[in-house]
Amino acid sequence: MWRASVITIFPDMFPGPLGHSLAGKALTRGLWELAAVDLRGFATDRHRSVDDTPAGGGPGMVMRADVLARAIDAVTAADAVTAIGTEAGDRRPCLLTSPRGRPLTQQRVAQLAAGPGVVVVCGRFEGVDERVIAARGLEEVSIGDYVLSGGELAAMVLIDACVRLLPGVMGAAASGTEESFSDGLLEYPHYTRPQVFEGRDIPPVLVSGDHARVAAWRRAEAERLTRERRPDLWAAQLARLSGVAETGSSPTPNAPRDDPKKTTDG
Amino acid sequence: MWRASVITIFPDMFPGPLGHSLAGKALTRGLWELAAVDLRGFATDRHRSVDDTPAGGGPGMVMRADVLARAIDAVTAADAVTAIGTEAGDRRPCLLTSPRGRPLTQQRVAQLAAGPGVVVVCGRFEGVDERVIAARGLEEVSIGDYVLSGGELAAMVLIDACVRLLPGVMGAAASGTEESFSDGLLEYPHYTRPQVFEGRDIPPVLVSGDHARVAAWRRAEAERLTRERRPDLWAAQLARLSGVAETGSSPTPNAPRDDPKKTTDG
Repeated sequence: MWRASVITIFPDMFPGPLGHSLAGKALTRGLWELAAVDLRGFATDRHRSVDDTPAGGGPGMVMRADVLARAIDAVTAADAVTAIGTEAGDRRPCLLTSPRGRPLTQQRVAQLAAGPGVVVVCGRFEGVDERVIAARGLEEVSIGDYVLSGGELAAMVLIDACVRLLPGVMGAAASGTEESFSDGLLEYPHYTRPQVFEGRDIPPVLVSGDHARVAAWRRAEAERLTRERRPDLWAAQLARLSGVAETGSSPTPNAPRDDPKKTTDG
Repeated sequence: MWRASVITIFPDMFPGPLGHSLAGKALTRGLWELAAVDLRGFATDRHRSVDDTPAGGGPGMVMRADVLARAIDAVTAADAVTAIGTEAGDRRPCLLTSPRGRPLTQQRVAQLAAGPGVVVVCGRFEGVDERVIAARGLEEVSIGDYVLSGGELAAMVLIDACVRLLPGVMGAAASGTEESFSDGLLEYPHYTRPQVFEGRDIPPVLVSGDHARVAAWRRAEAERLTRERRPDLWAAQLARLSGVAETGSSPTPNAPRDDPKKTTDG
């Protein structure tokens, strides 16, 4: 079973939003497992300190390497016990949420979801002692170019993104394999009833019943939105298509596809 | 007071993580205000439906324009009542969390934190009827290039990032004005006691007591990490510095600064 262990000084934040909706239902159904590990339990002094002042001066506090290493080792040791009889490759990657990390992508999410689970260290205070990052090979991951009060929300985002891709979590109708980012384009515009909203109609093509025209319209809209809003994604898309074209197997960029593009629920 | 209103089909998710830690303490102290608005309360049928099947076919469900518009209008109308005697410019921006949106940046976070607050619509299902996005001028914002099970976690991320910048929320020691992303660089490595961890020392420069050398080392490390990990941020940084240089007021990129760079707590 896919397992997420979160090392945090706020274990009471969990499951929080992960106990609701899709992830929460899947948790109740036993499709994944969540453990919130209280970092303070691995402190050794009377005050249960997990941080100290930064070497070299400056504001704030830094999370101690020794306390964090003990917490990580405890989780890893428990994994080793659990792992008897399973593949050696089932060791979970150990991530650290940090604005310094590699930006999280849907591709990395899919890789993590396909593995045995994750151990996530939630950064807090000014940061984490660099030596434990190196000594335990923590993978620093950033959910975006902004600053949070702590890594807990980032851990929840990462876990929610993974859980929805686990087998059985989403219905068969939304397999999560062909939606936003999977094909490198933003999603096309959506419409539903009522037919007229404040004088605005649903675009006629969508109620034409002509599936090929619907698919072509959606593809063209997805491409237009990506070009307009995310020139970075569009450039990557063009590079990918031209790379594929060189091998002779590229679809025409504007051609409708047999499979109408699925979209995101986020 | 800075106010966040969240329109959601999962009002019970709130305050959730926002009720803990920095944001939670600030909420208790009355430094900001949070309202979770149940979208289902604005449905008009017996089943309290907020969604329907997509025009043109395809998997999943789309959030209805009419129901969402009623919820947004109710929040806005309450704002208008509250706003008697305040500036007309105090209308809160109305955001929609969506992977199709403009990527959230620390700069946009700072703008939102400096305003009267936010109204956040949490996207769910396959998406939101395009007509309500246009009719109510919703600002689509994405917290990153990955797909979540819904917009609630994205709303929490956005709100947490804003709240920590509100006056009085962080201590004077960490004003949030000079940390990660504010100066376009990733944060430098942190160290704290113990002096030796598993045979690894704190870099000698940090315990030298020479403040200028410490500042120079940190600046050089921040630049090295940005170059190595985020060539996109580094290129933007170079472009900015060369632009400033043309006006004759640029600091030498590698020169130590009087103010040691503050870092993030995320």
